[in-house]
Amino acid sequence: MQNPHKYSAIDQSPLWPELSASKPEKLREVLNAQRIHERILPAGGGLSYSWAAMDLADRTVELLQAAADELRLIDQYRQVLSGQVMNRGEKRMVLHHALRGSPAGRVVVDGVDYSAFYASELARLSAFADKIRNGELRTSGGKTFTDVVQIGIGGSDLGPRALYLAVEQQARSAGLLKLQAHFISNVDPDDANAVLAGIDAERTLFILVSKSGTTQETLANEALVRSYLQQKTGLDAAKQLVAVTSQTSPLANNPSYLDSFYIDDYIGGRYSATSAVGGLVLSVALGPETFQAILDGAAEADELALNTDILKNAALLDALLGVVQRNIFMRPSTAVLPYTQALSRFPAHLQQLDMESNGKQIRRDDQPCAIASGPVVFGEPGTNGQHSFFQLLHQGTDIIPLQFIGFRENQTENDPPFEGSTARRKLNANLTAQIVAFALGKDDADPNKQFAGGRPSTLLIGDRLDGRALGALLAHYENKVMFQGFVWNLNSFDQEGVQLGKKLTQKVLAETGPGDEVLEAYGWLTGAL
Amino acid sequence: MQNPHKYSAIDQSPLWPELSASKPEKLREVLNAQRIHERILPAGGGLSYSWAAMDLADRTVELLQAAADELRLIDQYRQVLSGQVMNRGEKRMVLHHALRGSPAGRVVVDGVDYSAFYASELARLSAFADKIRNGELRTSGGKTFTDVVQIGIGGSDLGPRALYLAVEQQARSAGLLKLQAHFISNVDPDDANAVLAGIDAERTLFILVSKSGTTQETLANEALVRSYLQQKTGLDAAKQLVAVTSQTSPLANNPSYLDSFYIDDYIGGRYSATSAVGGLVLSVALGPETFQAILDGAAEADELALNTDILKNAALLDALLGVVQRNIFMRPSTAVLPYTQALSRFPAHLQQLDMESNGKQIRRDDQPCAIASGPVVFGEPGTNGQHSFFQLLHQGTDIIPLQFIGFRENQTENDPPFEGSTARRKLNANLTAQIVAFALGKDDADPNKQFAGGRPSTLLIGDRLDGRALGALLAHYENKVMFQGFVWNLNSFDQEGVQLGKKLTQKVLAETGPGDEVLEAYGWLTGAL
Repeated sequence: MQNPHKYSAIDQSPLWPELSASKPEKLREVLNAQRIHERILPAGGGLSYSWAAMDLADRTVELLQAAADELRLIDQYRQVLSGQVMNRGEKRMVLHHALRGSPAGRVVVDGVDYSAFYASELARLSAFADKIRNGELRTSGGKTFTDVVQIGIGGSDLGPRALYLAVEQQARSAGLLKLQAHFISNVDPDDANAVLAGIDAERTLFILVSKSGTTQETLANEALVRSYLQQKTGLDAAKQLVAVTSQTSPLANNPSYLDSFYIDDYIGGRYSATSAVGGLVLSVALGPETFQAILDGAAEADELALNTDILKNAALLDALLGVVQRNIFMRPSTAVLPYTQALSRFPAHLQQLDMESNGKQIRRDDQPCAIASGPVVFGEPGTNGQHSFFQLLHQGTDIIPLQFIGFRENQTENDPPFEGSTARRKLNANLTAQIVAFALGKDDADPNKQFAGGRPSTLLIGDRLDGRALGALLAHYENKVMFQGFVWNLNSFDQEGVQLGKKLTQKVLAETGPGDEVLEAYGWLTGAL
Repeated sequence: MQNPHKYSAIDQSPLWPELSASKPEKLREVLNAQRIHERILPAGGGLSYSWAAMDLADRTVELLQAAADELRLIDQYRQVLSGQVMNRGEKRMVLHHALRGSPAGRVVVDGVDYSAFYASELARLSAFADKIRNGELRTSGGKTFTDVVQIGIGGSDLGPRALYLAVEQQARSAGLLKLQAHFISNVDPDDANAVLAGIDAERTLFILVSKSGTTQETLANEALVRSYLQQKTGLDAAKQLVAVTSQTSPLANNPSYLDSFYIDDYIGGRYSATSAVGGLVLSVALGPETFQAILDGAAEADELALNTDILKNAALLDALLGVVQRNIFMRPSTAVLPYTQALSRFPAHLQQLDMESNGKQIRRDDQPCAIASGPVVFGEPGTNGQHSFFQLLHQGTDIIPLQFIGFRENQTENDPPFEGSTARRKLNANLTAQIVAFALGKDDADPNKQFAGGRPSTLLIGDRLDGRALGALLAHYENKVMFQGFVWNLNSFDQEGVQLGKKLTQKVLAETGPGDEVLEAYGWLTGAL
């Protein structure tokens, strides 16, 4: 396989002049029932990806296929799967697909079987979760655990939190919700204190998550929690704290913790939801079977992502459609709009996944990007958003491409009909109506009531948001972001942009003399100095 | 005063050619301690607004002052305060400032004293809240209320929810948190069912909020909650439900509710947080004194906003700086970054406030905007964001102007020092470091570690996030958005962009025959048909 340094970006392709001259189609002229039936494909986990309301013509799609082939996007994915060092800056492999059983088989590199390592940690955490759930493992006071608190930030928070909320009610309906989960992330002590005020600390399991074991926020929150436990319960914190970390971290094999579960350097923070980082809290709270369903769904999406035909590969197609919106139609932001309250924090997870992966300006060949890279990603659930920022999406001066997500069934039982329809049907009627309103608009003599339409969207739709659908949804976006990184020739797996802030924070905390007047003046203003 | 039709947009001003030719300053060259000490002004409620790290030169600021004068922005604000029909499309006055005591005095129009009406409703809801809190008013089973659930969407949800979370821990520390508040908004029944699963319904007060009394989501959720109460508790729902609505709505004076509190058509949804819409739930949960402090802080910011000198008017200056970023430096989105977990939902409220108010393309003179209007607004609390989308903010291909918010003190007590500093100090050291890292960057021989700097920001900073600071923060942004609407000559107080979706939803629910094949095909796909 070719040296990653030799990859190129889409704008360096001979196809780029024609591709970049593509113009948006007029959705009013082309969107019809036939297109809706044709522009749809499976996305794994029972999900379908509908792209009928994307405003690009068939010729542009042909060029995208040619570009995908020329840039060898699927080859690059296979390199990821086979354990090539695809995170070049940090000299690391990228192995999160192996967490759910890589579609390319076991990952064995230089005699080390990484797949076996991840599987054994999964088995260990599942057994641990079972013991917590069935009461075999109890507090040092002999009580069963009722709550679990994850202490972590970034990838150790957003993904696990989004996934927990996504299937909490589903698991409750299935009788699988045994412990209520909570999350402490911010170094702001008001965050931890608010969570502690809402739980019975004596009956709470705390999961400390930090791959390096040195994350400032997480260690500060651990100290706060330990101090609180000591004062409040007098119990031995070591009997209530478990760690998820790497085997080389100070938290590993440490008697200050009840147990430790391991990941390694090849699981990036924002790609770690399907590792022990997400797996332990989800398994403890909602059952190992819930987490396993997430893994199964993710594996389905990973498998589909191997397809070289972009019309059979939802993640790849989604990635390429996003590039058209960003670099050809010049639309610098995109909204994620799940029509289910359970996905309330999923946009925040995607915001991290996408913006931290591809918010970069230096390519893998060390040259500056000649075209724009990752977009701004934001979103809130519908129908809430309809009463909020949808005004701008409908009638603002800029066009924002939209990513709808929906499900046909509830997670919970109680849904009495009101005024002739269930709430579920109202929800999905709204989803339907919004897609059409954005695409087609409606003319009106009053310019304030004019809707020009032509606002493109995609839709990921499934029957029910269960673990399997959720896993596929998660992996769909992970793979989409990965493919976009390949298209822009970026390293999507490092995050050098967060380093400078860390260094300057240490400088402020160390109060290292007069030095920098700007840092001093702001430090004085914020009270940090 | 002049007819609003005669107002003009900033790009129609004779000042525009010079103003729009302004170039960003190089922050590395101009940012120093003196600038940080000079470019700061009070924003009300003890807050200061620092704009040293905004990249515009003094000459541009002079032109902005001249533009503010020429566009008569303060005159227009005075017209709002005096009860002119500033929401022209809907033919309504805009009276939310009167909710907290307008700085221009009582609003009496055609013999009707609106200020008196709002004050009397405030007195009524405060008395009601006291009775709930002191146990005078009890459930029909004779128990005291422990929880309160607000049922509302959009402005009846985002603002009240953001404000509640913002001062919940502050009120707890002060011994004022008597009832825990929860919010049901989405028509998705899983939202209501999740909230109901977490409370003791028998001891919960439900507040139904809908100005018109016809909001689809809110009525559907009411029906769901009533049905649940009947099945679960067998109690009389009418003894646990209160309404916040207009006097002409079907919910007014209705024996199905324990009581009703009133607003009117002159309080727009997204501007209603300081009305009974936010006031009842906040007063019941956190005490009338907490809500009064919010009103007092808002009144302070409203008063400052009357200043014609843009260097003494933080809301106006913030508005104009935003216009420079949007229309001159061509930066189409902006991030709100509160360094306090208590403001976790404040960005979502601002997203609504800003994008629903100014996400428009038709001016008040019915002509299309010739320049871009409202930006995309998004954000999450720091330090969480640092481990997420800050990568793109630091090193992405686009520059995103940043709005930091910070406080010098905690809301809660427990903050043990760890590794030489409290968590609060770590939090504010991070805030300091980020502002400086974005502005100045840092050169590095490795292009992946290069930070170009030149990423502008503002900072709203106060001592402690209490009710008064929160009220000022809220009103600062309300007034900022209003001023930007004036600058673009938009009606910031209507929301025609949400109407088409509503109509199409009704069409789907009514299943009105073959009609529209696109609506049908999507309705089939989502399961709505």
